[in-house]
Amino acid sequence: MANKPLILITNDDGINAPGLRKLISIVKDLGEIVVIASDKSMSGMAHAVTIQTPIRVRLEKEEDNYKEYLTTGTPVDNVKLGKHKLCGRLPDLILSGINHGSNASINIIYSGTMGAVLEGVIDGVPGIGFSLMDFSNDADFSHVDDSVRNIVTKVLHDGLPSGVCLNVNFPINNGVPLKGIKVCKQANARWVEEFEERKDPHGRVYYWLAGRFEDGDGRENTDEKALAENYVSIVPSHTDFTAHEHLDKLNFS
Amino acid sequence: MANKPLILITNDDGINAPGLRKLISIVKDLGEIVVIASDKSMSGMAHAVTIQTPIRVRLEKEEDNYKEYLTTGTPVDNVKLGKHKLCGRLPDLILSGINHGSNASINIIYSGTMGAVLEGVIDGVPGIGFSLMDFSNDADFSHVDDSVRNIVTKVLHDGLPSGVCLNVNFPINNGVPLKGIKVCKQANARWVEEFEERKDPHGRVYYWLAGRFEDGDGRENTDEKALAENYVSIVPSHTDFTAHEHLDKLNFS
Repeated sequence: MANKPLILITNDDGINAPGLRKLISIVKDLGEIVVIASDKSMSGMAHAVTIQTPIRVRLEKEEDNYKEYLTTGTPVDNVKLGKHKLCGRLPDLILSGINHGSNASINIIYSGTMGAVLEGVIDGVPGIGFSLMDFSNDADFSHVDDSVRNIVTKVLHDGLPSGVCLNVNFPINNGVPLKGIKVCKQANARWVEEFEERKDPHGRVYYWLAGRFEDGDGRENTDEKALAENYVSIVPSHTDFTAHEHLDKLNFS
Repeated sequence: MANKPLILITNDDGINAPGLRKLISIVKDLGEIVVIASDKSMSGMAHAVTIQTPIRVRLEKEEDNYKEYLTTGTPVDNVKLGKHKLCGRLPDLILSGINHGSNASINIIYSGTMGAVLEGVIDGVPGIGFSLMDFSNDADFSHVDDSVRNIVTKVLHDGLPSGVCLNVNFPINNGVPLKGIKVCKQANARWVEEFEERKDPHGRVYYWLAGRFEDGDGRENTDEKALAENYVSIVPSHTDFTAHEHLDKLNFS
């Protein structure tokens, strides 16, 4: 990487999210930056792609080594547009976030933040998704700077194993310094849904998706355990859904 | 399972898709059936959930051991609604499809069909996603009946390992009988995007996502290889994104 590395940055909370602004501010001087983010919140959009409608793109800002595009696409669309249209070449690194809300454990499967990063992996581009365990728009990101910068610098320098990206989560800022970084497993947790049933002014029923998070994973070294102990969690993640341990056990012939 | 098993059926092509109707017709007598499907195509919606807007639900049909609900949700929403609201209890099995289009290899990550099935796994409900390698609305499903029925019957009888669902894909009907069923790995393939740039009547640019599929996986026993040889492919799949082989190799402390 003789020239400045090309870093594609996106998120799933929309182009104006404080978490995205924070991420840009931390890494802006580390490479040539192309930001491609959505015009609205894409939270919960997972790996969705836009195939029923076309996608709009607008160049919002252009400075030395910095471009910012607004799109109507999902986080995965944004990475696809970046890889194949807006960046001019394959990026050297994809960063996503910093998400307002946890993407640890099963949350990765619903996450637009991580959808973007996993999309990079498919074309061999290393990526890192950053998330904070605080859903609020005015979440406090003041404790993440050093860790984000160190992780990005290390990945730019060392790369990542082929087919692997990083799912990085931060505990909320509780005033106590972070204990460090732990590389760990995705916890086997889930959301217990509690749909809220309401009636509109015309008497017709509608539902709001709600729920509470439940971590029933007793194993050591999970991301949820690390976060509970005030560590930054990093789960090396990939796009292979195969349950390899069952390949030889299932028989349908 | 003393009583009839409770089978939740959904898809991502919408409630009127011929593939869904085909699936219902094949398994209708095997249990108490609850169909929950979307009012429009949710193709490419992956594991997306609806959190920005409420979800509408309408009971469309009710017969002995058969109910059919129309919703405005995604395939994953539909499974969540089924599990926690419409089915009365956790289903014994979730079936999704038959999808118009392949969900083999990397397609699983974009797939609403498989999103629905993976959502079941999170709550321990076994599930099977069925897909046909033909995107057209009038796809020929006439060669799939026996295999679908046999796989569903076997899973109802034997269950599936905890945390595992099945991603089942069918070759197109080329007039030659299917060779059988192969349990295999998710091929390491990808889409090479070719965004089509167009201008609207006002001169503003928009993009259509397009692309061609590229299987560069040289390994034996992948789903793509099985399908190319006219086998039905089954990939046992799970929701753990952890790249376990790299847990001990990465160090960020």
